Amino acid sequence: MSLVNKQVLLASRPSGEAAADNFRIVETPVPELSDGQVLVRNHYLSLDPYMRGRMNDSKSYAQPQALDTVMLGGTAGVVAASKNPAFQVGDKVVGMGGWQDYVIIDASQRGMLRTVDTTHIPLSAYLGAVGMPGVTAWYGLVKIIAPKAGETVVVSAASGAVGSVVGQLAKARGCRAVGIAGGADKCAYVVNELGFDACIDYKAQVGVKELSAALKQACPDGIDGYFENVGGTILDAVMQRANAFSRIALCGMISGYNGEPIPMAAPQLLLTNRMKLEGFIVSEHMEVWPEALTELGTRVATKQLKYRESIADGLAAAPEAFLGLLKGKNFGKQLVKLV
Amino acid sequence: MSLVNKQVLLASRPSGEAAADNFRIVETPVPELSDGQVLVRNHYLSLDPYMRGRMNDSKSYAQPQALDTVMLGGTAGVVAASKNPAFQVGDKVVGMGGWQDYVIIDASQRGMLRTVDTTHIPLSAYLGAVGMPGVTAWYGLVKIIAPKAGETVVVSAASGAVGSVVGQLAKARGCRAVGIAGGADKCAYVVNELGFDACIDYKAQVGVKELSAALKQACPDGIDGYFENVGGTILDAVMQRANAFSRIALCGMISGYNGEPIPMAAPQLLLTNRMKLEGFIVSEHMEVWPEALTELGTRVATKQLKYRESIADGLAAAPEAFLGLLKGKNFGKQLVKLV
Repeated sequence: MSLVNKQVLLASRPSGEAAADNFRIVETPVPELSDGQVLVRNHYLSLDPYMRGRMNDSKSYAQPQALDTVMLGGTAGVVAASKNPAFQVGDKVVGMGGWQDYVIIDASQRGMLRTVDTTHIPLSAYLGAVGMPGVTAWYGLVKIIAPKAGETVVVSAASGAVGSVVGQLAKARGCRAVGIAGGADKCAYVVNELGFDACIDYKAQVGVKELSAALKQACPDGIDGYFENVGGTILDAVMQRANAFSRIALCGMISGYNGEPIPMAAPQLLLTNRMKLEGFIVSEHMEVWPEALTELGTRVATKQLKYRESIADGLAAAPEAFLGLLKGKNFGKQLVKLV
Repeated sequence: MSLVNKQVLLASRPSGEAAADNFRIVETPVPELSDGQVLVRNHYLSLDPYMRGRMNDSKSYAQPQALDTVMLGGTAGVVAASKNPAFQVGDKVVGMGGWQDYVIIDASQRGMLRTVDTTHIPLSAYLGAVGMPGVTAWYGLVKIIAPKAGETVVVSAASGAVGSVVGQLAKARGCRAVGIAGGADKCAYVVNELGFDACIDYKAQVGVKELSAALKQACPDGIDGYFENVGGTILDAVMQRANAFSRIALCGMISGYNGEPIPMAAPQLLLTNRMKLEGFIVSEHMEVWPEALTELGTRVATKQLKYRESIADGLAAAPEAFLGLLKGKNFGKQLVKLV
């Protein structure tokens, strides 16, 4: 029996907003395994904002995704066949399986595929709070913001896969955690379920001035650390409330991913407040993953770290789910469930 | 005989550009010394861009200069009378003597006044390369940019008191040093006298695009470290040429000191290039001064570190010299010679 693999390819590059016709679904036969290879049935596909950047042709930190190739992305699944002694059929595994039902991975290369324990942690969490988004949150908070107890930490996209972890880890370190999210329902979730001290609905604020006023109210002692996922006017408003010696971990600027200009209005605040701002990509800091995953895994297994998932059904739903993610339509970690 | 002290006061706050009528010169008698106090005859008065910020009423890192008080500023002079056993008449001293001929300093407070050795280092240099500007250059370069040999370091206001030291220290560390300065004469000096590898005349470049092209030529391997004194379009152009993992030491943004907006055009480059940007004020890092001054003093005494001075004559010339400094009319460290 030869397996058929359904795949989502990058069909064309967006000009401005990404659209459904930038993707194409194809079916291809799954080839035979060679020695060292593992065939994985992808169960969950992770959708993440960084993927938008790779759809462009422009210079960025990541190589552009080549046209007519399978969309890259993290996946969690189960080993369906193996010619590698380290992996057995039935093993739960996490890797970069891409937007497709099956993937063949050369597992002899270190780091390409790892088995995970789903006794206390659901498989899908390894794509979220106990995976790349969680470690991203951990790195930016712990290594860049490095907050002291009593300080105030603000995070944008606070209900998302990364932001939700940032605030909860900040709370665990004795900080005041304030979120910024789009919509009353997300804000209510951030405060009531995740335990943030406050959350500001940026959609209810007209502009920088209003957002800044809302931040002043939510952060009576100013802002010591900011974890940035959005950029644009939100960053401008936060900078107006930043304390001396505050730190900004620059993780994402989704407001500019379609190519809109997102100037920083008042960079002189970085000087007058002696701020530190650092851009980072978590995959370049593999040395922290073990420490971060230990904390994240323990907190998820013991229910101290909560998360929420938006789950799209079936591979064909991936493009639409991804486009929704870019517009903030998801609520929590955006996944596609394939099995 | 009672001494008369000529003083420059802040008469009013500028709206927009600072002007001569923001200052007022008065004459006051010098009071008697109390125990612990030292009377210093100021020989040199240091003029520095940071003073512009203190003329405003707005929140900044420094308290605003109060109206109708003597303009604050660093001075080098000679002890004229002393009721403090640590200071003798004739001692060469450096302190914050302000824009006036004489100053009484309570020298019992540590750090208010220090004696300096002028055997191998001219007195005026303690206000420049071996003083606050030199340590500013040292801190931003060594502690924030932290360049490796072979990297490219760019500095704006390259012929100035701070910039000239940044480039020479970078060269001493095996870096390519590229300056940005205003005018062909300053650029020639930066390359021919100070030994930078290249210097770009920003006045000869029409806009960001042209400046970026000039930087590309002067920095064939991109930019690894940038020491910022100016801001605005110069910062935008540098960011276009910044390498992955580059560092920006944010020391000054003189292009915005009159209140003009100086937005940063593309902050997303900080993310895509995983850059680090840090604002700093050298007076908050007193722990590095001994190490920095040791290197700076040794290099000046052995003629390895060169500097240039623009010297205005007499206290009455201070306001005009300061206004010229804000427009880049000075060439090297701007001083006022009082004796």
